[in-house]
Amino acid sequence: MPLSFLTLTTDFGLADHYVAAMKGVIYCICPKAHIADISHEVRPFAIGQAAYLIAQCYAYYPAKTVHVAVVDPGVGSERRAILVEAASQYFVGPDNGVFSMVMAGEKHKVRRIDNERYFRQPVSHTFHGRDIFAPVGAHLAAGAAPKTVGPRIDDAVKLESGRQRVLHIDRFGNVITSLREANGAIRIAGAVVRARASHYAEVKPGKLFVIEGSGGFLEISMNGASAAQRLRCQVGDEVIVG
Amino acid sequence: MPLSFLTLTTDFGLADHYVAAMKGVIYCICPKAHIADISHEVRPFAIGQAAYLIAQCYAYYPAKTVHVAVVDPGVGSERRAILVEAASQYFVGPDNGVFSMVMAGEKHKVRRIDNERYFRQPVSHTFHGRDIFAPVGAHLAAGAAPKTVGPRIDDAVKLESGRQRVLHIDRFGNVITSLREANGAIRIAGAVVRARASHYAEVKPGKLFVIEGSGGFLEISMNGASAAQRLRCQVGDEVIVG
Amino acid sequence: MPLSFLTLTTDFGLADHYVAAMKGVIYCICPKAHIADISHEVRPFAIGQAAYLIAQCYAYYPAKTVHVAVVDPGVGSERRAILVEAASQYFVGPDNGVFSMVMAGEKHKVRRIDNERYFRQPVSHTFHGRDIFAPVGAHLAAGAAPKTVGPRIDDAVKLESGRQRVLHIDRFGNVITSLREANGAIRIAGAVVRARASHYAEVKPGKLFVIEGSGGFLEISMNGASAAQRLRCQVGDEVIVG
Repeated sequence: MPLSFLTLTTDFGLADHYVAAMKGVIYCICPKAHIADISHEVRPFAIGQAAYLIAQCYAYYPAKTVHVAVVDPGVGSERRAILVEAASQYFVGPDNGVFSMVMAGEKHKVRRIDNERYFRQPVSHTFHGRDIFAPVGAHLAAGAAPKTVGPRIDDAVKLESGRQRVLHIDRFGNVITSLREANGAIRIAGAVVRARASHYAEVKPGKLFVIEGSGGFLEISMNGASAAQRLRCQVGDEVIVG
Repeated sequence: MPLSFLTLTTDFGLADHYVAAMKGVIYCICPKAHIADISHEVRPFAIGQAAYLIAQCYAYYPAKTVHVAVVDPGVGSERRAILVEAASQYFVGPDNGVFSMVMAGEKHKVRRIDNERYFRQPVSHTFHGRDIFAPVGAHLAAGAAPKTVGPRIDDAVKLESGRQRVLHIDRFGNVITSLREANGAIRIAGAVVRARASHYAEVKPGKLFVIEGSGGFLEISMNGASAAQRLRCQVGDEVIVG
Repeated sequence: MPLSFLTLTTDFGLADHYVAAMKGVIYCICPKAHIADISHEVRPFAIGQAAYLIAQCYAYYPAKTVHVAVVDPGVGSERRAILVEAASQYFVGPDNGVFSMVMAGEKHKVRRIDNERYFRQPVSHTFHGRDIFAPVGAHLAAGAAPKTVGPRIDDAVKLESGRQRVLHIDRFGNVITSLREANGAIRIAGAVVRARASHYAEVKPGKLFVIEGSGGFLEISMNGASAAQRLRCQVGDEVIVG
């Protein structure tokens, strides 16, 4: 019996029962599933942050892993549900750009999810995570063919990339930017950061520096303190090189 | 080898080691267990909130799932431990009303847990989650017959339901009430809410509305903002129809 | 197919993707793994707190469980990676004292981890949890012999124990001290606590008391309120008997 892996990324938090309801639905359809949480602490409705977290993770998972994302301000409206096939894996969620960064980096196919036989019935207007995304993901994890979920489309929603910006601020206060390289200083939140380091402990405490993070993006960091707090910057702030 | 599912609901939080100790005990007794967390962020000692979260979840889990709840202000005192059999599933926890909402909605049998062969020895005075509820739940998940845990009782503690109230406030600030339907306006925390919606994105931002939530209860919500913050209401506040 | 168990203890929090990246790496190497989180809410860089949480948990897990710890302020510097074999289990992490309390309580062997065939390549300077500790732990969980990770050493870093102190403050405000017994009052944060109890509900609300906690350490507690808040004490504060 081959094993099946799913990951979940939502803005539901862990205090409510929403994530647990999705896991129950998954286990009923695919009892052998191993389920890993990427994050449930995405800021409510912050599609770009979820896009970043998923993009940082999927490559570490086995082939055929199903990544389910539910950051879904448009639930119940006309927005579509999609399946993205990329990197020998599956991505299931709302068509709102949450898989933009995966699609930007990998050859991919997109399908509109419309096979209601895979849905939990009746489908609610407020919780498609439980009624559509979890059960469709679980059917894929259990072996359903991607083509059975719905037809190919080529107009999936993508987040604007445009100017360089702060993608994420992690628990340590590291400021992850969208830059993959930079010749020169980095300007951010009114400050100019020139120092470079290759590991955190290399720089004396209290000094801002630029470091290549573990995901390939440049970060602004401090040794033993929060660079984000020092800079008073936020997700989405602009970042300029030079 | 059939699979075994357990869920955990506690007020232990995730920073401490208490939940992990329970999982270790479970794996020793039932190595094949799949364990899902419903919530560990129940307010300390908030039995009614745990009762709500469990009631919102169990129906999505496979038959034979064992739901273990540890919100247990009376640990070490004379309060009993119980097993509830309902909906082809098992519910294991203290006899303090934490399974009230399950019992109110399903045909059920209750047993007093007193078979010490299933307990971790010695049983501490302060952590029955680890020493009684987790191991009893794991033995059931591993196939023990319910009747071996102890004799039937018919006087399990139930939480008063009485007046309609706020059951829960979720991460988005949705105010979940105990109402399943309401003809007319809903009065709550000094406000009167008349507008209705069938999905969140339907209403313009800034306006309170009533919506049927995914669990069948009426919620007071706002599109893209916290209704609870606007209303300044709390779990337990009274709700009046008309 | 025997099952494999791993636990994770980090200061990564659950909002970021770091823990999920480690789980993906583990599943790729050891697909049958069951992974339990001990805590990811260790205060950033608080090695002593992680040492306490692991020491409170490991004994409840099956033989051969691999405990991976990543509280690692020295990542990328010259600090070593180690494997501790103790209590028929494995402990994998940085050589900074995070397994001190396990080593203090059990017969043990320590190995320096230097077999790069077990590492994820290329090894980053900033995330050894993903690139060294998770994959080495997963290889052990999958059956690799401990001696293949590297040679024995006998100078692993140990945290100073010295004076008695506050080890941890849990979610309920219980103050866990390093004392295992005490004849007489306990002096802490300017207060003197004399009352004793054997379970929390035994004492009337508002009164501080000493209780033997579920892990064998003496705790200062209050019934239904936070002893830590009353005492205004912190992890690391001194504790005196008499």
